[in-house]
Amino acid sequence: MVDVEPAPSPPGRSGRALPVVGIVGGGQLARMTAQAAVSLDLHVRVLADEEQPPAAVAADIEIGSPRSAEALRSFAASCDVVTFDHELVDLGAVAALEAAGHAVRPGAQTIAMAVDKSIQRRRLGELGFPVPSWATIATPGDLDAFGAQHGWPLVLKAATGGYDGRGVWIVDDVAAGRDLLTASAPEGVHLLAEPKLAIDHELAVVVARRPGGEEAVYEPVETIQADGICREVRFPAQLSPRVHDEARSIAGGIAAAIDAVGILAVELFVCGEQVIVNELACRPHNSGHITMDACVTSQFENHLRAVLDLPLGSPAPLGPAAVMVNLLGGPGGTDPRDRLAEGLAVDRAKVHLYGKVARPGRKVGHVNVVADDLAEARRLALAAADALTGMDNDVEAPR
Amino acid sequence: MVDVEPAPSPPGRSGRALPVVGIVGGGQLARMTAQAAVSLDLHVRVLADEEQPPAAVAADIEIGSPRSAEALRSFAASCDVVTFDHELVDLGAVAALEAAGHAVRPGAQTIAMAVDKSIQRRRLGELGFPVPSWATIATPGDLDAFGAQHGWPLVLKAATGGYDGRGVWIVDDVAAGRDLLTASAPEGVHLLAEPKLAIDHELAVVVARRPGGEEAVYEPVETIQADGICREVRFPAQLSPRVHDEARSIAGGIAAAIDAVGILAVELFVCGEQVIVNELACRPHNSGHITMDACVTSQFENHLRAVLDLPLGSPAPLGPAAVMVNLLGGPGGTDPRDRLAEGLAVDRAKVHLYGKVARPGRKVGHVNVVADDLAEARRLALAAADALTGMDNDVEAPR
Repeated sequence: MVDVEPAPSPPGRSGRALPVVGIVGGGQLARMTAQAAVSLDLHVRVLADEEQPPAAVAADIEIGSPRSAEALRSFAASCDVVTFDHELVDLGAVAALEAAGHAVRPGAQTIAMAVDKSIQRRRLGELGFPVPSWATIATPGDLDAFGAQHGWPLVLKAATGGYDGRGVWIVDDVAAGRDLLTASAPEGVHLLAEPKLAIDHELAVVVARRPGGEEAVYEPVETIQADGICREVRFPAQLSPRVHDEARSIAGGIAAAIDAVGILAVELFVCGEQVIVNELACRPHNSGHITMDACVTSQFENHLRAVLDLPLGSPAPLGPAAVMVNLLGGPGGTDPRDRLAEGLAVDRAKVHLYGKVARPGRKVGHVNVVADDLAEARRLALAAADALTGMDNDVEAPR
Repeated sequence: MVDVEPAPSPPGRSGRALPVVGIVGGGQLARMTAQAAVSLDLHVRVLADEEQPPAAVAADIEIGSPRSAEALRSFAASCDVVTFDHELVDLGAVAALEAAGHAVRPGAQTIAMAVDKSIQRRRLGELGFPVPSWATIATPGDLDAFGAQHGWPLVLKAATGGYDGRGVWIVDDVAAGRDLLTASAPEGVHLLAEPKLAIDHELAVVVARRPGGEEAVYEPVETIQADGICREVRFPAQLSPRVHDEARSIAGGIAAAIDAVGILAVELFVCGEQVIVNELACRPHNSGHITMDACVTSQFENHLRAVLDLPLGSPAPLGPAAVMVNLLGGPGGTDPRDRLAEGLAVDRAKVHLYGKVARPGRKVGHVNVVADDLAEARRLALAAADALTGMDNDVEAPR
């Protein structure tokens, strides 16, 4: 084990060294984490490949590629702990930082579970958590066999690199699947198949976990997707007590089993009374943005507390119901920053913008509303989102 | 295919000019305002006489003296609106900015009411608001006359420059008053006298007001002082419905009457069923720090909304009871940053630190707790404050 030089004092305010949290990647998750860090007087440094990423508003930026081992090494030397805004990192380089004695939270083994769905499914299955039936698909023969066993249509997913609906395809028959295989192979995309499940609800459970094992498990929320993009998050999820408790128990159990440190978001399918693990993200997550206004402690503050091994804050809800609606760039590139007055005119709407160019369909912010019941929270959050984006955000409304 | 974003054009991130809010002074009020500005994607610039004031964490710093007309002119030229962290400014220079067409909110006439207690008392009296009996005191004869009319002891206050208990003296007789007069005259301190009232409660009502007159009036809170320093703020204040309504009505009425824009904090005395105006501050105020965690919209976000003439956010409380306790540097200079783990271990405690050196007695942060009742909120907020400061913060406990 190589000795690690202590992190140099940041160009500190008030003549003292503050704890330095390094975040690899400077997107909206780093931005909101840095905003939360102000209250705890923590110093946030961000490794990003541009000078003015969204996080620049409340963090020091070190220019460098999150995919470069050399940039990671140099960055880690200036931080007390290194954590992540996204998983698009060189896992070997991350493991090397850990081996050199840097505090890297979560560690490379945990991140690997989030990066590669094959690893994730295999390991969760081995650990006894409920996952969909699945198989890696390398040839049309693999596809034929999986379809014969589970029926058509089925779902093909890229094992790595997919997000916001990218990297997921529903294929009706072996011919369609064969086309996809042919197109994917030259790109180096590995595919896995799973049955098209009859899903009643999609849930997410956010868990904060410290190195020693202390956990704060947030209440399950229902996530509403359209075209694979999360559009709305609702609390409380409409679940039987058994499913509610099982969702929390699975999420907390996975965090412990994979040694997650910081925030782990566990996405779940509910099929009847059955709870099945869909995906993991070992960082603050879109499904947890609602915690900024709806819970005693936000996922961002608890991520900071967890990676610094500080006591976790209460995940308790602040009201009986809450809704989050994502703000997407409108079809013509409508920018919520041009419509701020309209959005802020909606009662109880908490607007959070990310400082991003509003390209059509891109997540550029979100709105949270806490209210006495779910219908009222939805009505206000959707009204604010509609005002800010100039489009109808109720993806469940009859068209 | 990699999307390329346009190069950032300073000072805006993501290739667009953001609304620029200039704050004169870089203390904790500017810091917490800048933290709130992240969510609305506003750009905050601060005029401060040091490179790393508390606000530096989330704002651009322009070095210059808030008392310099030249520095104010140059600063205002880079801002869409100019507002204030404190009132220690050259009012003539502020008026000149307004005359030159800059948006200055609040304006010099409103600030003058907060800076000079003589102007404040006279003007509020003229406007028909209830103020204590008072007189300016220039000679021992003035003092004799006021004492003869209102009895001894009485309270002498410096008309300008007092804060946190400085500039307030209780004098028992004319001899003591004469000593104070003799000591004050060479310092250029102007004194005013008021009777020593039998105060049952000290209240504060925070009001946000837009240029056009829209107001958001927060619920009255009770403020607990020791040695003239605010130590604790409680919601709800224990008031009769009549006093509660009158406190809100007086505060909202003053904001309109003096054309306050942004946050106006109105400090009130309750003597029996009588409500009397004590002091005004036309900026975010210590009594409003509780709104960060206890209300839908914090005073800091509403200050930003108001000075930018955006719709105000709801001031509604998020729970039935809440308490704020100020964190002071301990007698030996104990620093809450060294005891963060102990403070965060207290359930539901929301810790806010200001990035300031913990000199004994100096305000370096605060703790908010929202709970189901006041006793529980006090218990938790005091427990966290005690853990962070290493001293007993319950100034009402029997010693």
